[in-house]
Amino acid sequence: MSRFVKNGTVEMKNVPSIVSYGSAVGRMEGEGPLGSCFDYVSEDSAFGENTWEKAESRLQQHAFEQALLRGSIAESDISFVFAGDLLNQCTGSAYSMRNNGARFVGLYGACSTMAESLCMAAVFADSLEGTLNAALTSSHFCSAERQFRFPETYGGQRPPTSQWTATASGCVIVGKHEAPPFIKTITIGTIIDMGIKDANNMGAAMAPAAYDTIKTHFENTGTSPEDYDLILTGDLGYVGSEILRDLFLQDGVLLGERYNDCGLMLFDRKKQDVHAGGSGCGCSASVLCGHILGRIKSGELKNVLFTATGALMSTTLVQQGESIPGIAHSVHISFDGEQGG
Amino acid sequence: MSRFVKNGTVEMKNVPSIVSYGSAVGRMEGEGPLGSCFDYVSEDSAFGENTWEKAESRLQQHAFEQALLRGSIAESDISFVFAGDLLNQCTGSAYSMRNNGARFVGLYGACSTMAESLCMAAVFADSLEGTLNAALTSSHFCSAERQFRFPETYGGQRPPTSQWTATASGCVIVGKHEAPPFIKTITIGTIIDMGIKDANNMGAAMAPAAYDTIKTHFENTGTSPEDYDLILTGDLGYVGSEILRDLFLQDGVLLGERYNDCGLMLFDRKKQDVHAGGSGCGCSASVLCGHILGRIKSGELKNVLFTATGALMSTTLVQQGESIPGIAHSVHISFDGEQGG
Repeated sequence: MSRFVKNGTVEMKNVPSIVSYGSAVGRMEGEGPLGSCFDYVSEDSAFGENTWEKAESRLQQHAFEQALLRGSIAESDISFVFAGDLLNQCTGSAYSMRNNGARFVGLYGACSTMAESLCMAAVFADSLEGTLNAALTSSHFCSAERQFRFPETYGGQRPPTSQWTATASGCVIVGKHEAPPFIKTITIGTIIDMGIKDANNMGAAMAPAAYDTIKTHFENTGTSPEDYDLILTGDLGYVGSEILRDLFLQDGVLLGERYNDCGLMLFDRKKQDVHAGGSGCGCSASVLCGHILGRIKSGELKNVLFTATGALMSTTLVQQGESIPGIAHSVHISFDGEQGG
Repeated sequence: MSRFVKNGTVEMKNVPSIVSYGSAVGRMEGEGPLGSCFDYVSEDSAFGENTWEKAESRLQQHAFEQALLRGSIAESDISFVFAGDLLNQCTGSAYSMRNNGARFVGLYGACSTMAESLCMAAVFADSLEGTLNAALTSSHFCSAERQFRFPETYGGQRPPTSQWTATASGCVIVGKHEAPPFIKTITIGTIIDMGIKDANNMGAAMAPAAYDTIKTHFENTGTSPEDYDLILTGDLGYVGSEILRDLFLQDGVLLGERYNDCGLMLFDRKKQDVHAGGSGCGCSASVLCGHILGRIKSGELKNVLFTATGALMSTTLVQQGESIPGIAHSVHISFDGEQGG
């Protein structure tokens, strides 16, 4: 049985394995620095569909299928699917999984969803013998932009703090203790709102939540930044990442070169016009599944603290003058599968 | 450790208790047949706030507080909160829980959220010793109507199949095996879409999912309708309930008088102008927390199969000509706490 430590942290007892993973992205993500890492790159941003929303569902299916394929897993062998996305009523996930027989737990954590779904999949895999649990999420630039900001055709100008919603998806399948990567501990975050009201400055809205969750994770597990090869947030972008570094510096903690952000890794900010960096559920999902998990599996990375961050923003509430709450969840993914005490 | 049976069903090993619960509703719900059952009835449909969305968050806080109060539980003693609602980006829950320190897992399951959150809370309580897990959801007539259909001021005419979104909220707190009510088994549902496109006929869109989950639950647990005092759906309303009865009749199974629907219980359809009945996450949540759990606690009801149903409807996808997917999750709540084999 997993062990509840305190303040959102759970230590895995059986230390479940990430038995497979898959990623799928759009053309622009395929042209970025990680382009060669992804399992599936589409030249067609509509993914063969006639609306952006259906395109996102199709994109998500590609990531799910790639994960099944890599692990030689039949769709019917998946016990539970934990999935969510940015669209109203999480339709990216609901339409992607409808009528396929998957036992479905819908999540909403904005861009924190990859970590949220991984936390749920980890607890289920650790506690329920014989289960295979999929954690799945996606985002699509066009469906997200028109829902949260302006339709593409409007040609609205983007301020420097704005981030670029990735057209991307990732799927992780968590099962019994077997081989690396392993999930060792998770920390579920709390909703923190520091009063940011600018829908074009998500990084600033999310950074305090990322700080709180990572700090709590360190405290509850008795670890420090030095215990990780990589502390990876997704997706604070340039603005949020700098704030996070500053918040830790105020505690005398230097994150240094072991820290990176998925939003800064997915795109080349000098060549690609993404302003403060990438964002969207699919950004951290695709970077994790395309670029990180393979390196943990091979032993190149030993300990990664993956912390996806979400801005729980609603256009309705922002129009009502409300500020934007943020949340972040941490997952410690390790090459080492030693079972905890 | 809980036991995974198959097809979405999990049998609780330690058989967690529902250690507390709370409910809060609006005036119209307070005037209905169950009015005297609720912990908190507000005469003010705005709950002291200046927007409907903020009103819903305030309503949800009332239910949460009532659950803490009934159980003499400090807010800081809650380990995890599983919450969601109907609003875009689930803001009812996000704004209700922001900055209160709760470790928050955001869910989206439309009106199935009370069962979905209970399933998550049950697995966490059963697997993570020493945790108290809150399952929480809400809906508000005014915030839901304007988001999904028309603003109130438009005065749109409602067809007979339409349901009335309840202004209501419920919170259940699940902890260690102690005293009734107990959660014995859960069945996570799958997304079923039978092609219904009418946003004013949610009952028909959800009934096939309810049928599938309840049937699967019977099969996986080796039970039949006779094993339950009450099989309770929420919220199929009149139209969906009749379809569910018919679907079971086709299998030769008569649900009979042991079957009821929260949407038919919350309002008096003869006196209150709710057409096919109540709906919304808060409908089943408030009926469960206000009317059902107390009767299980006292032993008046021995075995209840609570199955909340959700229509995963998005106005965007419906406008694109898509049909409405449904989902349902079942929770077996019992007076008997015998720990399974």
